[in-house]
Amino acid sequence: MLIIGELINGMYQNVAKAIKEQDKAIIQKLAKDQTEAGANMLDVNTGPASATPVETMKWLVETIQEAVDTPLAIDSTKADVIEIGLKTAKSRALINSTSADDEKLDRLLGLAKQYNAQIIGLTMDKKGVPRDRATRSELALKIVSKCMESGVNLEDLYIDPIVLPVNVAQNQGIEVLEAIREFQLLCDPPPKTVVGLSNVSQGTQQRPLINRIFMVMAIANGLSGAILDPLDKDLVDAAVTAELILNKHIYCDSFLTAYRK
Amino acid sequence: MLIIGELINGMYQNVAKAIKEQDKAIIQKLAKDQTEAGANMLDVNTGPASATPVETMKWLVETIQEAVDTPLAIDSTKADVIEIGLKTAKSRALINSTSADDEKLDRLLGLAKQYNAQIIGLTMDKKGVPRDRATRSELALKIVSKCMESGVNLEDLYIDPIVLPVNVAQNQGIEVLEAIREFQLLCDPPPKTVVGLSNVSQGTQQRPLINRIFMVMAIANGLSGAILDPLDKDLVDAAVTAELILNKHIYCDSFLTAYRK
Repeated sequence: MLIIGELINGMYQNVAKAIKEQDKAIIQKLAKDQTEAGANMLDVNTGPASATPVETMKWLVETIQEAVDTPLAIDSTKADVIEIGLKTAKSRALINSTSADDEKLDRLLGLAKQYNAQIIGLTMDKKGVPRDRATRSELALKIVSKCMESGVNLEDLYIDPIVLPVNVAQNQGIEVLEAIREFQLLCDPPPKTVVGLSNVSQGTQQRPLINRIFMVMAIANGLSGAILDPLDKDLVDAAVTAELILNKHIYCDSFLTAYRK
Repeated sequence: MLIIGELINGMYQNVAKAIKEQDKAIIQKLAKDQTEAGANMLDVNTGPASATPVETMKWLVETIQEAVDTPLAIDSTKADVIEIGLKTAKSRALINSTSADDEKLDRLLGLAKQYNAQIIGLTMDKKGVPRDRATRSELALKIVSKCMESGVNLEDLYIDPIVLPVNVAQNQGIEVLEAIREFQLLCDPPPKTVVGLSNVSQGTQQRPLINRIFMVMAIANGLSGAILDPLDKDLVDAAVTAELILNKHIYCDSFLTAYRK
C-alpha cells in the first residue's frame, strides 16, 4: 500500500515554527522518522498561514531531499505552489490534488503531464462533496476520462472519495467504502484509490481506533493508499496485516518487521 | 453484530477440568464474563474428549442457564448432542452447525424446525472445504435452498464460509472475504453470515492482531456475526467501531461503553 506520511504540514505547530525559523532539523527529522516507520511517500504542505507559499514549498522540498530519498506528495490548493514542488522534486512526485472541476483538472493534469507526476483526483466539484457513492463514482469517471484525454496514464491516477468525520456525517462511511469498490469498475486497469484518513475521526475521542478500523475496512474494499500518520505504529501494523490477509505480501512470523525493511 | 463467545468449549483445559469435576463455578464465571464483555450469545461445546457428550451438553446448558439468560449456540458435530442442547435450552438457540451434505442438512434443518432454532450452515461437504469463493457460494446456495424447502426461515440461517489459517492458506483470506459479500446476493432477505474467527490466526505469532484485522475486513464485507473471544477487549472494540462506521449504531463520544450497556 502507498503510505503517505502526513506530518510535514504547516497546519501543525511544530512545522509552522520550523518554517518560520527556517529550522531544517525539525523537518528532516520528520522526514526520516516517517520513512523509517513505513511511509513510502511524504506529503508536503506549507499550511494555510504561509505568506510566501511558493518559496516555502521550495524550501521544504529541498530540505526534505537533503535528508531522505522518499518520493513526495506535493500538497496545495494552489497550482503555482504545486508547480514549484514538482520542479524542485528530484524523483517522481504525486500531485495532491485536483478536484473534478474542469479548470482545475485542465491545469493540474497539464502539470502532471509536464512533470511526469502522479496525481490525486478528489471526487468533488463546485457543488461540494457528494453525499452518495453514485455521485462520487460519476465524478471519478469524469476525472478518469479527463485523465485519458490529457494523456496522463491511468496507472498514475489516484481517486480520493473524500472521507468525512464519522461524528457529523455518520452515513457517509459506507458511501465512501462502497465508492472505493465501485471505482475499480470504472476502467481497466482500475484507477488506484487513496484517502485522507484522519478526517474520519475529526472531533472524536477515539481518533487512533477509528482511523485504524476505517482504514482496514477501506483496504478490504480495495484501497491502494492513504495519507496518514505513519508514526502511529498500530495503524501501520493494521495496514500491513490487512494486506497480508489479502495475500499482497507473503506470510512469515515476523511479517510486521519484515514489511518495514 | 452477533458476538458468540467461544470460551465454553471442552477443548480448553479449564473447561475440560470443570466438566470432569462438575465444577459449575468455572463455567458460570465464563458465562457471566463473556456476557458482560459484550457477547450476545454463548457457544457451548463439550470438547472432543467427553465420553458422555449428551450428558455433558445437558449439564453445561443447565449450568450456564443458572447464571445467565444469554442465548446459546449448541456446538457439536453429533446430532444427538445438538438435540439435547436444544431440548435443554430455555430460550431460542442456534445450531452450530450443519455442513452442506444432504443427510446432515436434512437431520439438522429438521431439528431447527422442530425446536424453532437458528442454524449455521458451513460451506463444506464430503469433498472438504472449497478453495474458491464460487464453490463456497454454490454450497451456500444449496444450504439456502434446503432451508427454504424444509420450512426454516432464511432469517434464521447463518452461512459460514469457513476461515482458514493465514499462515498455511494465505490465498484463502480474500476468497472468504469476497464469499461473504457474494452470499448476500443469493436470496432476499440475504442469509446472515458468521465466521469462526480465531482459525484465521492459528499457528501465527500475532493472533489477536490477525483476528482483529480479519474480522474488521469481514464486517466491511457484510459479516453478521462471529464466534470469538469476547474477553479480548480490543477485538470487541474493533467490532463495535466497524459497525459504528457502517452506521449501525449512533455515534456518541462514549460509543464503546455505550454499546456494552
